[in-house]
Amino acid sequence: MDNKLIEGKIVAEFIKEDLKVKTAALKRDKNITPCLAVMLVGDNPASKVYVNGKIKFSEELGYKSIVKELSSSTSENEVLQIINEWNEDPEINGILVQLPLPHQINETKVLLKIKPSKDVDGFHPENVGRLVAGLPGFISCTPAGIIELMKFYKINPSGMNAVIIGRSNIVGKPMLNLLYQKKEFANATVTICHTGTKDLEYYTKHADLLIAAIGSPKFVKGDFVKEGVIVFDVGVNRIVDTTKKSGYRLVGDVDFDEVYPKASMITPVPGGVGPLTIAMLMTNTYKSANNEYLY
Amino acid sequence: MDNKLIEGKIVAEFIKEDLKVKTAALKRDKNITPCLAVMLVGDNPASKVYVNGKIKFSEELGYKSIVKELSSSTSENEVLQIINEWNEDPEINGILVQLPLPHQINETKVLLKIKPSKDVDGFHPENVGRLVAGLPGFISCTPAGIIELMKFYKINPSGMNAVIIGRSNIVGKPMLNLLYQKKEFANATVTICHTGTKDLEYYTKHADLLIAAIGSPKFVKGDFVKEGVIVFDVGVNRIVDTTKKSGYRLVGDVDFDEVYPKASMITPVPGGVGPLTIAMLMTNTYKSANNEYLY
Repeated sequence: MDNKLIEGKIVAEFIKEDLKVKTAALKRDKNITPCLAVMLVGDNPASKVYVNGKIKFSEELGYKSIVKELSSSTSENEVLQIINEWNEDPEINGILVQLPLPHQINETKVLLKIKPSKDVDGFHPENVGRLVAGLPGFISCTPAGIIELMKFYKINPSGMNAVIIGRSNIVGKPMLNLLYQKKEFANATVTICHTGTKDLEYYTKHADLLIAAIGSPKFVKGDFVKEGVIVFDVGVNRIVDTTKKSGYRLVGDVDFDEVYPKASMITPVPGGVGPLTIAMLMTNTYKSANNEYLY
Repeated sequence: MDNKLIEGKIVAEFIKEDLKVKTAALKRDKNITPCLAVMLVGDNPASKVYVNGKIKFSEELGYKSIVKELSSSTSENEVLQIINEWNEDPEINGILVQLPLPHQINETKVLLKIKPSKDVDGFHPENVGRLVAGLPGFISCTPAGIIELMKFYKINPSGMNAVIIGRSNIVGKPMLNLLYQKKEFANATVTICHTGTKDLEYYTKHADLLIAAIGSPKFVKGDFVKEGVIVFDVGVNRIVDTTKKSGYRLVGDVDFDEVYPKASMITPVPGGVGPLTIAMLMTNTYKSANNEYLY
């Protein structure tokens, strides 16, 4: 066993088993079966794979699921109307629109239409704002998963110098806003770096906790970090690998071979942060079904 | 003229004159008069002063205003009901509930009740989330005012090492989320420091741009900062001063006398950031009346 490695796969399995037990109890005690509705517009093959993975996971937990597959020529109005119906349907606890959407559909308009109390992806501005204010709400799944990993491995970021690379809406920004909260498994001093950052290495070299969410293969090199750093690598990048049957392999935003020797803990890619994302989506759906997010 | 000094009083006057002209045009061209509704619960003397100041300013601009003064024993339900009526009233463009509220009233519940499109204070989670996502919405007035000061004084934070001290919902958090955006007068690398920060001076000494929003008189000393730093002091603290008739004077969170010699630009207290807050509240109310914030 490698006790430097943060093994998301294992943690996701724990969460899955826990959700199975809780879901069975919810059915038994309150006669509620969590239900996730997923919309897939167009025929992006990667999106199909993601949606199938989510549906499979939800069924393994004993959830109900609804999948609506729509052609790539679907109008924005049709999409908005289905969301409206799902918003009003008391059987549905979680609504997920797989991104990206075809160009004729405004993604922001669609995300704004989802009722915040069913927005299990945590993308609606009301949920983003609740996260910032420290109010109950749905938290974007990847950052929520990183917090779960910290809890599991007893990594307490309080007082740490935490540095995030990347300002995306789904990872960098919510991660930032989670980590400085005056709460358990937070309370870090947090810096957000991005393409506009001058002298990135100045920040990364001083980081106690480094979260890379850039989308650039092996971007973070060994000399970017200090001895003892804790690293969460959110990147999932394909690079050519002729030794593989598929012709490629997955690597993170961190050059694992270079950074591993200096790190005190680090997530691998794949099997690190990735597996938590679906697990947190399912956790959010369970919480919605169990009415944990009303205010 | 002191060209180190960021004179918010002057900038607020410019904004005021501009709003007067725009308001007159809005009346003439669209027959719309901006209307701000303000609720004051209880008899906190400071709150009364603030509310009177806001009403006076709005009337000078030619706005309509509604003031609802309620006794300190008002129930939460009464407050929520009035907000509901204001939400539905097409004549009202901006709704403001003066904080703090008496203990029997849940502030969060009240803020959540205000329709985001009339939430000119920018406190509703939907507006906070819109700010984070870079979507149109109402921005909390003090941080919005600091951005206005930057525009006026041509301070471009892009690429700067910006450090914020304080994680309040009304200043620190929105300031953080504004400054890293990929936008004009933003795009800084931003660090948020707070009571949980270890070695605060490490961060402040490297800051190109320092924003202090702590609520602690003269907290930031000369040796906290580097030569050439740009300082925005959000603090407004009373300290005893027996030479004054009132017995006190106002000081910021920054020890002005110590920091001024090292700073390249700095806001005084009073007359720096403060005057912008009401000006931005009025700007938000105007924008609401002019329907600039729909999505």
